[in-house]
Amino acid sequence: MYTESLVKLGKVRSEIREIFEYGNQRKAQIGADKVFDFSIGNPSVPAPQSVDDAIIDLVEHFDSVALHGYTSAQGDAAVRNAIAEYTNQRFHTTLTGNHIYMTCGAAASLTIVLNAVLQKDDECIVFTPYFPEYGVFMERTGAKLVEVQSEQGTFQIDFQNLDAAVNEKTKAVIINSPNNPSGVVYTEEKLKQLAAFLEDKQKAYGHPIFLITDEPYRELVYDDTKVPYMICLYDNTFVCYSYSKALSLPGERIGYIAVSPKMTQFEDAYAAVCGSGRALGYVCASSMYQRVIEKCIADTSDISIYKRNRDLLYQALTEMGYECVYPDGAFYLFVRTFGQDAHVFCEKAKEYELLLVPADSFGTPGYVRVSYCVQTKQIEDALPAFRALAENYR
Amino acid sequence: MYTESLVKLGKVRSEIREIFEYGNQRKAQIGADKVFDFSIGNPSVPAPQSVDDAIIDLVEHFDSVALHGYTSAQGDAAVRNAIAEYTNQRFHTTLTGNHIYMTCGAAASLTIVLNAVLQKDDECIVFTPYFPEYGVFMERTGAKLVEVQSEQGTFQIDFQNLDAAVNEKTKAVIINSPNNPSGVVYTEEKLKQLAAFLEDKQKAYGHPIFLITDEPYRELVYDDTKVPYMICLYDNTFVCYSYSKALSLPGERIGYIAVSPKMTQFEDAYAAVCGSGRALGYVCASSMYQRVIEKCIADTSDISIYKRNRDLLYQALTEMGYECVYPDGAFYLFVRTFGQDAHVFCEKAKEYELLLVPADSFGTPGYVRVSYCVQTKQIEDALPAFRALAENYR
Repeated sequence: MYTESLVKLGKVRSEIREIFEYGNQRKAQIGADKVFDFSIGNPSVPAPQSVDDAIIDLVEHFDSVALHGYTSAQGDAAVRNAIAEYTNQRFHTTLTGNHIYMTCGAAASLTIVLNAVLQKDDECIVFTPYFPEYGVFMERTGAKLVEVQSEQGTFQIDFQNLDAAVNEKTKAVIINSPNNPSGVVYTEEKLKQLAAFLEDKQKAYGHPIFLITDEPYRELVYDDTKVPYMICLYDNTFVCYSYSKALSLPGERIGYIAVSPKMTQFEDAYAAVCGSGRALGYVCASSMYQRVIEKCIADTSDISIYKRNRDLLYQALTEMGYECVYPDGAFYLFVRTFGQDAHVFCEKAKEYELLLVPADSFGTPGYVRVSYCVQTKQIEDALPAFRALAENYR
Repeated sequence: MYTESLVKLGKVRSEIREIFEYGNQRKAQIGADKVFDFSIGNPSVPAPQSVDDAIIDLVEHFDSVALHGYTSAQGDAAVRNAIAEYTNQRFHTTLTGNHIYMTCGAAASLTIVLNAVLQKDDECIVFTPYFPEYGVFMERTGAKLVEVQSEQGTFQIDFQNLDAAVNEKTKAVIINSPNNPSGVVYTEEKLKQLAAFLEDKQKAYGHPIFLITDEPYRELVYDDTKVPYMICLYDNTFVCYSYSKALSLPGERIGYIAVSPKMTQFEDAYAAVCGSGRALGYVCASSMYQRVIEKCIADTSDISIYKRNRDLLYQALTEMGYECVYPDGAFYLFVRTFGQDAHVFCEKAKEYELLLVPADSFGTPGYVRVSYCVQTKQIEDALPAFRALAENYR
């Protein structure tokens, strides 16, 4: 009667949301400051003042009919040009507004690209740990998601595993660096190796293999970490960018797709993106938020707060004996569980009022995700609980 | 290489946009006040002051992290409750927030519902004239769009034609009242007849036939025209609502789906909507605009301007000998062409600097759409051109 696969998707309870709801109940029982919720990946730092200023300026001074009116489906031309120019300055690319397609955030960017390039029985490779919604975003294509295990411990790309997984059906590869949930940033060396590997495979199979980069965390990197821009390294790249984390606007749904100027049959690629957006019901990204982006193009929220949280949490947990992946970016700490079963570990953690997310659904059993996009005080207050949890396993 | 059907969709030039672009060129040549562009369906009346006030109030006084943070996928609970209560007051329904799913506008509402209920080889009925994007919104489902010709002249539902089109594959029917492009509002009598007809067919075929109402123009009705609320008349109704026209916010993409509380297997229906939204890449509707809607729930733009335009244009054109469908709603006048071919007629109209849209792509050859969401002065200035065009055909 209803589309069965979609009914099923709609009924799956999100594990993260269930933990979050448990946390809210528990806070009501024992007090908010006694529960240490590290489950949700919602930015805890407010949008920069420039975003508020831009909104108010637009509402007060921009013609209302134009401000809130339709833009073209690919987005306002001035906004797209501004993004292209800014990207060219940062990464020495040769983008124009005609390579950019504005979207309702990274989820929309990914779904539009996946529908544009994947057909029934194609395969799309993802590296563990990976955001489980990738499988959902390709549901309408009939293609198959193929997991490739990353290098143990570092969670960089394991090329032996990748080589074993690629075959003539491989149509696309998704990378997510900085990574949710591990915080790992791929090194330039590894990414160059990936580009060379995919070039070889394209030749071997005689068709393009598209690289899709999921980049909501690009700006959230610490110290002098560099996040290479894949359009510079590999021609068949679609960049799926979002301002959700960079500007703390996850609920406003604003981002874009950058289609590499050197993409195979570029015109068809860009047309497929436009057609995909139409077929998925996207008319345009929010016309007002497009213009907010234009005004705030080089801004970010105060990332230093996440860095402070990372340093505090990483240092404290490793000192307590936790095995943590060192996160160069994003706002997650990826922690090996004591004992094999992450669900058992997370239940035990609840006894200490610590709410953590088992990473099984990310394709990496034996790990938990600790979101440090929280108030720094919550981390400080939670340290004795983390210590007690570790001691419980001694 | 790329998904062929989507490449094709992405390459189709929109006829309306081409006319609009021609208009812009022509204005540059001979002056903006000399070109009478009636091609675009973009609200010409600004959003009400209450929308601006709501945005500024939210930015200045609502916590930034919460304002711009994710809402649940189905939308903020308080917003959904407010919409349910307001709808109950207006239409004596028994909705709660759990029957509402917030969307990025009517296109998203429709695409989500169509994917939720249509599977490969199902058929979905539309009545001429109809918005041609309906076919695009069902592209990913593999279902077939079936056109049913409406009553000549009135463009009300023709039940003989409908009966001839319905068969056991019929899974859904879309209605759009007030209608784009005819401005026709279905009478309560016709809608009750439709409900009874569909009830019969459901029994005959032993499966639900879903009624999908596309309602962006619900608030744009004139004089004492009533737009019956289909959830009151037919249990298996999905209402696809949008604030694009009511609040002049088409670029912001905000609307909702109301799933009838009496829908067959309601829980599965609502789950299919949620799953469909996820699979199409929608995470949530704009969190800020959801809250704007809550604050402006009973407001509209100044609709009286459209009524003034309608009265002026309808009266003048009928006096000149044009055969026009009397529009009770929306902001379009549907005009029979002199001569059979609407494209030829529109080319002739261009000689008088009148930019009109041939209605062939809406499934009704021999008609043009005249959008009167323009400055009233444009209509006044254009009347001599309309007169000269008519005289040309004498």
